[in-house]
Amino acid sequence: MSEIRPVVWVTESRAVRLLDQTLLPLEEIYFDCTTVDVLVDAISRLAVRGAPALGVVGAYGVALAITQGANQGWSADHLHLEILRIRNARPTAVNLAWGVDQVIDLVGKGFDEVLLKAHQVAAEDEAANRLLSKHGADWIIGQLGSKKFRVLTHCNTGSLATSTWGTALGIIRELNSRGLIEMVYADETRPLLQGSRLTAWELAKDGIDYKVQVDGAAASTILRGLVDFAVIGADRIARNGDTANKIGSLGVAIACKEAGIPFVVAAPSSTVDVSYVDGQHIEIELRSPHEVTNFGGARVALELDHAYNPAFDVTPSRYVSAVVTEKGVATPISGESVEGIA
Amino acid sequence: MSEIRPVVWVTESRAVRLLDQTLLPLEEIYFDCTTVDVLVDAISRLAVRGAPALGVVGAYGVALAITQGANQGWSADHLHLEILRIRNARPTAVNLAWGVDQVIDLVGKGFDEVLLKAHQVAAEDEAANRLLSKHGADWIIGQLGSKKFRVLTHCNTGSLATSTWGTALGIIRELNSRGLIEMVYADETRPLLQGSRLTAWELAKDGIDYKVQVDGAAASTILRGLVDFAVIGADRIARNGDTANKIGSLGVAIACKEAGIPFVVAAPSSTVDVSYVDGQHIEIELRSPHEVTNFGGARVALELDHAYNPAFDVTPSRYVSAVVTEKGVATPISGESVEGIA
Repeated sequence: MSEIRPVVWVTESRAVRLLDQTLLPLEEIYFDCTTVDVLVDAISRLAVRGAPALGVVGAYGVALAITQGANQGWSADHLHLEILRIRNARPTAVNLAWGVDQVIDLVGKGFDEVLLKAHQVAAEDEAANRLLSKHGADWIIGQLGSKKFRVLTHCNTGSLATSTWGTALGIIRELNSRGLIEMVYADETRPLLQGSRLTAWELAKDGIDYKVQVDGAAASTILRGLVDFAVIGADRIARNGDTANKIGSLGVAIACKEAGIPFVVAAPSSTVDVSYVDGQHIEIELRSPHEVTNFGGARVALELDHAYNPAFDVTPSRYVSAVVTEKGVATPISGESVEGIA
Repeated sequence: MSEIRPVVWVTESRAVRLLDQTLLPLEEIYFDCTTVDVLVDAISRLAVRGAPALGVVGAYGVALAITQGANQGWSADHLHLEILRIRNARPTAVNLAWGVDQVIDLVGKGFDEVLLKAHQVAAEDEAANRLLSKHGADWIIGQLGSKKFRVLTHCNTGSLATSTWGTALGIIRELNSRGLIEMVYADETRPLLQGSRLTAWELAKDGIDYKVQVDGAAASTILRGLVDFAVIGADRIARNGDTANKIGSLGVAIACKEAGIPFVVAAPSSTVDVSYVDGQHIEIELRSPHEVTNFGGARVALELDHAYNPAFDVTPSRYVSAVVTEKGVATPISGESVEGIA
């Protein structure tokens, strides 16, 4: 089983070490962030991504900012602004802000307290992932019986998206550890191909059988009966279960409803944002048109100003069979709120 | 308005001249096919694609085979086998076989008769496109009233996919000529990006405002109310209205149903194959995994044997609001068969 850790704190150099996910699967390169600028850039260009991983980055980022501030003699106000830059580096990812907020009250108590808490955030993420994976696997078996499952997933929600282990991919790992995975259909997940680059890489490392398909194939694969259930992660979950996740998730959800199979959302409870009654007002990050008009370094379309690139979509709760966190399972499709597992 | 012609017969050299659509939009290069080998290769690698264009290619292809056979002294049996190779170069595209079949009975009467009929096939395709475009535009206005429409389309169904003018894109052109197009959302259409490469190129030439989006964005764009209707082409339409078209079409159809907006299929009547009661047994072409794991010369995923690449999906008639041919409009969603417009 994969023990990939995409975000670690390097004690000696007081750096946030990241696995550069933009280079996977062809190159496996780690790099150290020792300034807020480098870290914010890494977050923006998705060198590190995945909601839970961003939570860990947010927490360690505060430790990094304190270190840089001490070296460069920042005022308390300056330090606060730099921390806010980290907190706001990706608008849709609630976990990034959440990670910062876990440690921000400790800034006055000094670096050691902040780092200790950041380590705790990372450890708790791993524990949450492993626990929610068991909850999710149990729920699926409860719904569909114990058998070899054929699963569809979108984007990357594995070790690379978290401290380690994963959320949606964690459930797949948990089922696989019980001998219950036959096949994983991984959507390639345009524009940045987290599915074909990252999820496929993780599944191959774990020896789980998989197929990569274009995102447009998902509906057909589901309606043709090739899939028993779909499971995705989340960037933000509103109180009623409306779920913001990688663009393309909504189409998977609708196809699951049409096919009458479960559509499962897996995320740590920190992803649930009860301040949102529903998903209507979740801000959708519009990313660079370059991501659409270019592909693997190749220009594919002519005009940048004609690209529309929303990074996320919002799946209404009526399509969400289950939300799974480390605290349990809620079923928004039946009208159940997710407050009980937040 | 675009008068691009992707397939023409070159009288002097007795060649089928094709615009190499694999090089668009960055290069606009025509090349001449003077052997069946070159033509079959061009069809296979999608240098020419689009159901109606393939019908024209099929008809001219027979003229080409007769020419090559005469030069090389083929027997009648040999000629017949070469014609069959053209006919079977793409399994899902009924129009390719249809185009061959339009002229095959004339082979005994000689080259001139075949070529005359092939020219007629091309001319009739253009006339059919222009007529079905009027029918489609009228039907949309009948359903939604006369206003500036925001339209979503998938793949390429314009001049490049036909003799000229287009089918689904023809309806958009017709509405635009009436001043009724506000915005076209063009799905990029992985794996071969016919949307971002070809449809965007055609829309730009016509001065129609458009946005290219990843295929995964379609469901969200539709459910957020940004689109008034969707219109696509077809590779094969069964008697009940089940429609085989480019992978990703089904997801668009399901999203339209959820959003309560029309999902329109536009194609010449030659695309309707009444020998199929429904879409259940339509053969789905599985294409090379290279299309999924590579892009624009860049390798994006690790293992070829883990790519699943169905080129088409089948949209059940229950999602098809209207099928439009040059003979009129049928509404499969209400249980109406398409026999009347076949």
